[in-house]
Amino acid sequence: MTDHPFAFTLPLPEGVPSRIDNHVKRTLSSMRGQYLDEKAYEQQLATGDHTVYEVYELKGSEVAGELLMGVSVVHPGKVGKEFHMTKGHFHTVRETAEVYYCLKGEGFMVMETSEGQTAVEPMLPGKVLYVAPGWAHRSVCTSRQEDLVMFFAYPGNAGHDYATIEKRGFRKIILDGEDGISIVDNPRWRTP
Amino acid sequence: MTDHPFAFTLPLPEGVPSRIDNHVKRTLSSMRGQYLDEKAYEQQLATGDHTVYEVYELKGSEVAGELLMGVSVVHPGKVGKEFHMTKGHFHTVRETAEVYYCLKGEGFMVMETSEGQTAVEPMLPGKVLYVAPGWAHRSVCTSRQEDLVMFFAYPGNAGHDYATIEKRGFRKIILDGEDGISIVDNPRWRTP
Repeated sequence: MTDHPFAFTLPLPEGVPSRIDNHVKRTLSSMRGQYLDEKAYEQQLATGDHTVYEVYELKGSEVAGELLMGVSVVHPGKVGKEFHMTKGHFHTVRETAEVYYCLKGEGFMVMETSEGQTAVEPMLPGKVLYVAPGWAHRSVCTSRQEDLVMFFAYPGNAGHDYATIEKRGFRKIILDGEDGISIVDNPRWRTP
Repeated sequence: MTDHPFAFTLPLPEGVPSRIDNHVKRTLSSMRGQYLDEKAYEQQLATGDHTVYEVYELKGSEVAGELLMGVSVVHPGKVGKEFHMTKGHFHTVRETAEVYYCLKGEGFMVMETSEGQTAVEPMLPGKVLYVAPGWAHRSVCTSRQEDLVMFFAYPGNAGHDYATIEKRGFRKIILDGEDGISIVDNPRWRTP
């Protein structure tokens, strides 16, 4: 059990927490198969395995009743027309929620259930998002200059199921285009 | 179950959420017996039952795995030398944590366990506080001008036990004085 209170700050503009127990860096090579434009992906990877997003985690007990926290930072960029995004995941324990608070940047949270419901929520500083139990979620940064920085908290027993999304993707993807940003059906989405 | 994601904003400077399911207003009369200086309390109450703090709640399912959220606003003021504060509470289910994010103002979170451990954490904008399971907690506003505004999230099954604190108080209290703000032992704290 995490048996004593503790505090830390999220100093802007970076939003990186003043206490970090674990730092996850996801580079382009870890996102293979996730982007629509595979040719653009391979071309970009050939020029260098740059960082797509980072997660700063505060460790705690992975049990029900406790809360785990962290900050995700999605860097600006695109693969083909598709904006930088996190891998996205379901919680292993499906009946667990998550709360996000956006500190900086602009983008979307792309969400879906196993049953086929979808939701795409625009994120901007000062916005709180409640990810209901059973909803997979992925952060997408649509700013050209700024990181998308979000604080999150979720139940200690939630766990992460990345495999389901790695196999089939999300039903909705976020693309850049001449007419602006669009939310479109993912033509490569695979039925489970 | 809260079965669909939802979002809202916490626009500053007020920090009042753009979506509110329940608004709690605690006035001086609801804090009887909580302040050290009972004479000052009665004198102040005679001049009017002013609001000490407010809570804006987002409703959700009160079950494990879900998260309940809200914003607390403690207005500046004192009763005698003691700063304005919330009633404070344990969670009914002791094995549940809570996360606070300070949006505005300055103050303290006063905390203690049933076993007698105490912790007092200074709060200021940008600070995150993890209230570990089993720790009662009370917010105290020490600014002369500004509200102390904090966003919070906790497990849906936590519940609120106000009665224990109403009966015995917190072991530590926050007082104003000529030499500044002090954290002192509560002479009126009662053994359970």
